[in-house]
Amino acid sequence: MAYFDNASTTFPKHESVYNNTMEIYRKIGVNFSRSSSEKSEAARGIKKGLIENLKRIYSSNTHEVIINSSATFSLNEIISGLDYSGIKTVYISPFEHNSVYRPLKRLEKEKKIKIQVLKFDKTELDVEDMKIRFMSKKPDLVILTHASNVFGNILPVEMIFFETKKYNGITVVDTAQTGGVLDYTNISQLSDFIVFSGHKNLYGPSGIGGYLYNKNIKLEPLLYGGTGIKSEEIDMPVELPERFESGSPNIMGIIGLKLATDEGLKIGIKEIKKAKIKNLEQLNIVFKEYCYDIKIHSDIENNIGIISVTSPNFTPQELGQILSDHGIEIRTGLHCSPLAHNHMKTQNAGTMRFSVGYFNKYEDFKKLQETLEDIF
Amino acid sequence: MAYFDNASTTFPKHESVYNNTMEIYRKIGVNFSRSSSEKSEAARGIKKGLIENLKRIYSSNTHEVIINSSATFSLNEIISGLDYSGIKTVYISPFEHNSVYRPLKRLEKEKKIKIQVLKFDKTELDVEDMKIRFMSKKPDLVILTHASNVFGNILPVEMIFFETKKYNGITVVDTAQTGGVLDYTNISQLSDFIVFSGHKNLYGPSGIGGYLYNKNIKLEPLLYGGTGIKSEEIDMPVELPERFESGSPNIMGIIGLKLATDEGLKIGIKEIKKAKIKNLEQLNIVFKEYCYDIKIHSDIENNIGIISVTSPNFTPQELGQILSDHGIEIRTGLHCSPLAHNHMKTQNAGTMRFSVGYFNKYEDFKKLQETLEDIF
Repeated sequence: MAYFDNASTTFPKHESVYNNTMEIYRKIGVNFSRSSSEKSEAARGIKKGLIENLKRIYSSNTHEVIINSSATFSLNEIISGLDYSGIKTVYISPFEHNSVYRPLKRLEKEKKIKIQVLKFDKTELDVEDMKIRFMSKKPDLVILTHASNVFGNILPVEMIFFETKKYNGITVVDTAQTGGVLDYTNISQLSDFIVFSGHKNLYGPSGIGGYLYNKNIKLEPLLYGGTGIKSEEIDMPVELPERFESGSPNIMGIIGLKLATDEGLKIGIKEIKKAKIKNLEQLNIVFKEYCYDIKIHSDIENNIGIISVTSPNFTPQELGQILSDHGIEIRTGLHCSPLAHNHMKTQNAGTMRFSVGYFNKYEDFKKLQETLEDIF
Repeated sequence: MAYFDNASTTFPKHESVYNNTMEIYRKIGVNFSRSSSEKSEAARGIKKGLIENLKRIYSSNTHEVIINSSATFSLNEIISGLDYSGIKTVYISPFEHNSVYRPLKRLEKEKKIKIQVLKFDKTELDVEDMKIRFMSKKPDLVILTHASNVFGNILPVEMIFFETKKYNGITVVDTAQTGGVLDYTNISQLSDFIVFSGHKNLYGPSGIGGYLYNKNIKLEPLLYGGTGIKSEEIDMPVELPERFESGSPNIMGIIGLKLATDEGLKIGIKEIKKAKIKNLEQLNIVFKEYCYDIKIHSDIENNIGIISVTSPNFTPQELGQILSDHGIEIRTGLHCSPLAHNHMKTQNAGTMRFSVGYFNKYEDFKKLQETLEDIF
């Protein structure tokens, strides 16, 4: 199989995730936060290691790291938990995923907020327009995906957040497509919330995610429940990370993501980026041969590794099925991001999305090339 | 190590969870709901198998099965997502965990609900009191843990829900301590929501849980996001289970819990119960020898496998640490259930909780006996 659906979930994961997660879970799989035993201390050590890895990946030594089940959960917790008494205007990009857009639209009904979509000419931010709009309606909250999950374009998050901070706005970046690939040195300190997904470019298992949190920002937890501390109080504790980590911890997920991030840091973020860019270019070369049959909707420059295409001869679903029958795995349709399709005028049937990972091999591109040769 | 903290998380899990989860995840670990490939069809098949297993375990062929990250998540989703226009009075037991009590107390501030605690004489429900109160303040919503996570007593859920249904009340049962051990034949059809935890008595991995859902009850999802269907709509889809399963599925957790429930059904729920009862009795026999040094607060009759004790000579934390130093794993304190401690008058320092599992061996009890012999 040639796997080009890495934007959904990366595949395969680092070998150590498959090889070692269960052995460690078998040895220490008890509830670490609630006991003083050797096993639970070992589990706490692994969580501590994971937090250190995440801080290195995101170039932060000031954020609190909150571990939960997913980026979707994190975005919902942040969007629903902020104090909206001082938030009137929320800016987003036209590339936001439904995990941002749907919670915001729901909130719009309940709170007095206005959602403003930043102006982009295709993948290019209109900087002047942004500056003028920020002046007239100050950015109280700015939520940005770091790269479009449909088209792959990397957004100028640093510049937008830099402008936002002039107005003391709260900043949230969704790094599901970029964490573990891009350098966060300049973005980290401009971001109040850095949301991550364990199973994408961090190459960890499914079921784990979270966010880096500037604890000066007031936030209500989405879940109320047991935390192992201050059980006698009716409210959730103010202590971090317990306030946001109700319920039994996902120890297996923590072990898996720790192993994955160990491996990622060993290879090096720069190397992972280099491999992805190389794979992206290979993909682009294949498509270029079929320029009459395949229309590329993505910019290849400044792209995280995702190319969305359509074909005049097939619907995305039709061609996606043919490719699947040939052992080529892609994703077709709207990719949970109707906003991006509306913006790029691909909303009717969506696109065929090809997304590369660190592990794509020459054979994958060869197979794709041969299959396209058969079809067209 | 002698492990007596199975009420926190069972340990060990079934061997197949450790041995096979990763091999399967390595083979089919892609996002199953979003693609038509062979791998994603295999993943869908595993999820279907898990749902069938859960329906067998809970004796249901009418509920929809919702898979998410935990019982805590499920209880929060249910408690915050119900339509409270018709709900005035919410009954709970005095044994509820903070994952029920805290979300309800939060809700009490926002909605016009009144929380009523059913009257229990120690672990015995006052049936007459309940019937009289139901008549004067009808039970619009009843949320019950099936067994106390602190004292182990099994609550008369069937009878309470039977009375509740005379008033058309909504019924929620938290089976974190009982699912996979008790027979649900009589309870299933009286329950609108049956909440389960994967990592407890189902012997699955951490990070997975969910609930069986009577879809005639109106419910708002807690998470808004991508579902892989109807991406173009701003609202969450009405389709089940997609409405309640935003974000990438936890495929690794689904595989692990499928393997665990396969094994549980193969052994048989009755056999698992029998083993737990036998282990509970063994534990009780050990404690009985130290009746001057250890005070038992649990009823042993009608108990899921949990004995909470205190000692006149030590605080729970002190004795817990000594036991831990001897390789005996228990949990001390309030166990995230202050309500239960207030009811049983153990709220000051909490208790030492010993909870048995299917896998406890004769050696565990021998080790405990020898250690207590050393201490007292």
